[in-house]
Amino acid sequence: MTALPVTPIAYVRGGRSSPEDDNWGGERAAIELEDFLPPEALAGLDAFSHAEIIFQFHLVPDAKIETGARRPRGNPDWPMVGIFAQRGKNRPNRIGVTVCRIISVTGRRIEVEGLDAIDGTPVLDIKPVMAEFLPRGEIRQPDWSSELMKEYW
Amino acid sequence: MTALPVTPIAYVRGGRSSPEDDNWGGERAAIELEDFLPPEALAGLDAFSHAEIIFQFHLVPDAKIETGARRPRGNPDWPMVGIFAQRGKNRPNRIGVTVCRIISVTGRRIEVEGLDAIDGTPVLDIKPVMAEFLPRGEIRQPDWSSELMKEYW
Repeated sequence: MTALPVTPIAYVRGGRSSPEDDNWGGERAAIELEDFLPPEALAGLDAFSHAEIIFQFHLVPDAKIETGARRPRGNPDWPMVGIFAQRGKNRPNRIGVTVCRIISVTGRRIEVEGLDAIDGTPVLDIKPVMAEFLPRGEIRQPDWSSELMKEYW
Repeated sequence: MTALPVTPIAYVRGGRSSPEDDNWGGERAAIELEDFLPPEALAGLDAFSHAEIIFQFHLVPDAKIETGARRPRGNPDWPMVGIFAQRGKNRPNRIGVTVCRIISVTGRRIEVEGLDAIDGTPVLDIKPVMAEFLPRGEIRQPDWSSELMKEYW
């Protein structure tokens, strides 16, 4: 296994201080670029309505990482599914990817709404959402995933 | 700066051997899980139509990484925009995120269509696409990005 070192380019500031499963939709937080990056790195981001935030679930301990299959949220009503067929945080590399709404961009700071990451979360990348990068063709997903997402936002 | 080591969980096999800008839509390739992960890690993924692949643009040299602003694809007709307001590969941490169509899942292997990553690309994570994780609310984006994407797929 080759380690690929990645470096936080920003941190989440504000919002929730501990992870909870649901009701993230109205949550506001800021993303603050690290000092080694100039404010120009965010130039033009405010022309987009949404950004995709790639971050690390930094509080997940090694012992909790799932490498095989498990029931999402441990719910006995849901099937055993592989960790790469669900989006839970206890996953190899602990990477989270979430689309949130951009409220404002000022200097090195982005105000966002609907980011399911807690205060202090390291951010690995920020990408603008382009409609052309959304799924092409019809989306199909199993029932358990729609049930799980019912109260998420 | 704290390094956060991440490890490839899979590699892209097949598809293009060198990066090109456009016409990725019909490209087929496989994603093969590393041996340290059991096939169960993919259980149930075939119930989803699309997967989101988080990968690393591993061929980008340090000297090419943009940390400020540049014109997308060097096109003089487009504005200077920050690296985090575009999706080009020459970015800090070299992370790419793309949604592709799942053709089949067999053992440790996923056949996909429309993945814009070349043969040998290290994969950091695989997530199922759930409609609930798509952008909430209307999407707004600048004209240059729609022009850039015209021939992409």
